[in-house]
Amino acid sequence: MRIPVFLIASPIGDYLQDLSVSAIHTLKSVTHVFVEANDKYLERLRERGILSDQHRVYLLSDPQVDRARGFIRAQEPFAILASSGIPCFLDPGSELVALCLDHHLDDVELIPVGVSSALDAGLCMCGLDVDIFHFNGHYPEHHIFESSLPDNGIPLVYFVRGATVSAFVAEVRAKVPNVRRLVLLKDLRKKRRSLVTVVRWPEDDDGQLPPDPADADFVCVIDRSRDEPGR
Amino acid sequence: MRIPVFLIASPIGDYLQDLSVSAIHTLKSVTHVFVEANDKYLERLRERGILSDQHRVYLLSDPQVDRARGFIRAQEPFAILASSGIPCFLDPGSELVALCLDHHLDDVELIPVGVSSALDAGLCMCGLDVDIFHFNGHYPEHHIFESSLPDNGIPLVYFVRGATVSAFVAEVRAKVPNVRRLVLLKDLRKKRRSLVTVVRWPEDDDGQLPPDPADADFVCVIDRSRDEPGR
Repeated sequence: MRIPVFLIASPIGDYLQDLSVSAIHTLKSVTHVFVEANDKYLERLRERGILSDQHRVYLLSDPQVDRARGFIRAQEPFAILASSGIPCFLDPGSELVALCLDHHLDDVELIPVGVSSALDAGLCMCGLDVDIFHFNGHYPEHHIFESSLPDNGIPLVYFVRGATVSAFVAEVRAKVPNVRRLVLLKDLRKKRRSLVTVVRWPEDDDGQLPPDPADADFVCVIDRSRDEPGR
Repeated sequence: MRIPVFLIASPIGDYLQDLSVSAIHTLKSVTHVFVEANDKYLERLRERGILSDQHRVYLLSDPQVDRARGFIRAQEPFAILASSGIPCFLDPGSELVALCLDHHLDDVELIPVGVSSALDAGLCMCGLDVDIFHFNGHYPEHHIFESSLPDNGIPLVYFVRGATVSAFVAEVRAKVPNVRRLVLLKDLRKKRRSLVTVVRWPEDDDGQLPPDPADADFVCVIDRSRDEPGR
């Protein structure tokens, strides 16, 4: 059984009035919650009974990879909760997602809750440092490849029509230099549950690709970092 | 009195379960709603009574700038509702936001509802074509300027610490070629109500800048398009 790992956004605005039924239900369903800081937002969640004494809260300012690995091995679901915005984007947490993608892709199911765009879903589910990224459009309709750019290591993000995934990957192989891997996230608009495929370069061959499904789009994050993955 | 123009996101996931109390309340409070398409999502909103016979729904596939201008002149609030994700990002609607920013900045108040990140807020509130954009980081901590890039017209997005807005704008003036204007959006995490400043280049001088408020960040979208603004 794959255990759920929830990535919970907190929408911008009036705090609790902007939290959805789904987000409240999800928070109440888990015991272990990783947070950026013990701040006013958590206090309000406690005041309203959404977080209670049964929750165990861990700060992402401390190293938490070993703890998360322990939860995965014990098949205990956990959540990463942003106190403002989405988790893992200009905030800590992506190292836990990287742990899931690099070592436990068959053990966990990443489930974003309350994100308002497939872009936000991609940013928090890719497990990469996306403090800087370039969104290069929708493939095949309207997009650019930057083969003329220097090897600056910046992640590239594309929306890709499901029926053209193979063509897209072939074009990335041909045009984008220094690709380390692709993280392909099946579009979540129709079904919350994620289908994440990680294609490493050049180890994996095309056999690792998801089939071209005409009924769903993908978010593709292209990793061109020089760091060792699987921090 | 400035009339509210609501930009309503529909979070990814389980449709209505993911709609917040704020979003439902906002939809019920307006009469005029611009939508991308008359689709299953609207049907569900109608079934649940969130949209009713008192609502007037207009398709963004038709030209709607004149209609929106009429609402602003008559001081009638309206909403732009995304059926999936955020409005105006890879979907129609940005021409209505551009109308507000270019001609009615003192008449309207842009209010995003249900967006999960300041980035998403910036994308739907900037009134620009952001089908392709480059997110270049957080100023001053961790960011890049691309003075070496060709004039490719791609919008650049930055998060900017409130206390450093003047320094940021000076650096943009010095380093980024072919800037047409800046759209500065005061960070909405603390207060939903927006403060949008549009700085045109080179007509406006520094007097147009918001003061450097240490208590809030900004999202800055740099317009380098060659099109005439105020479509």
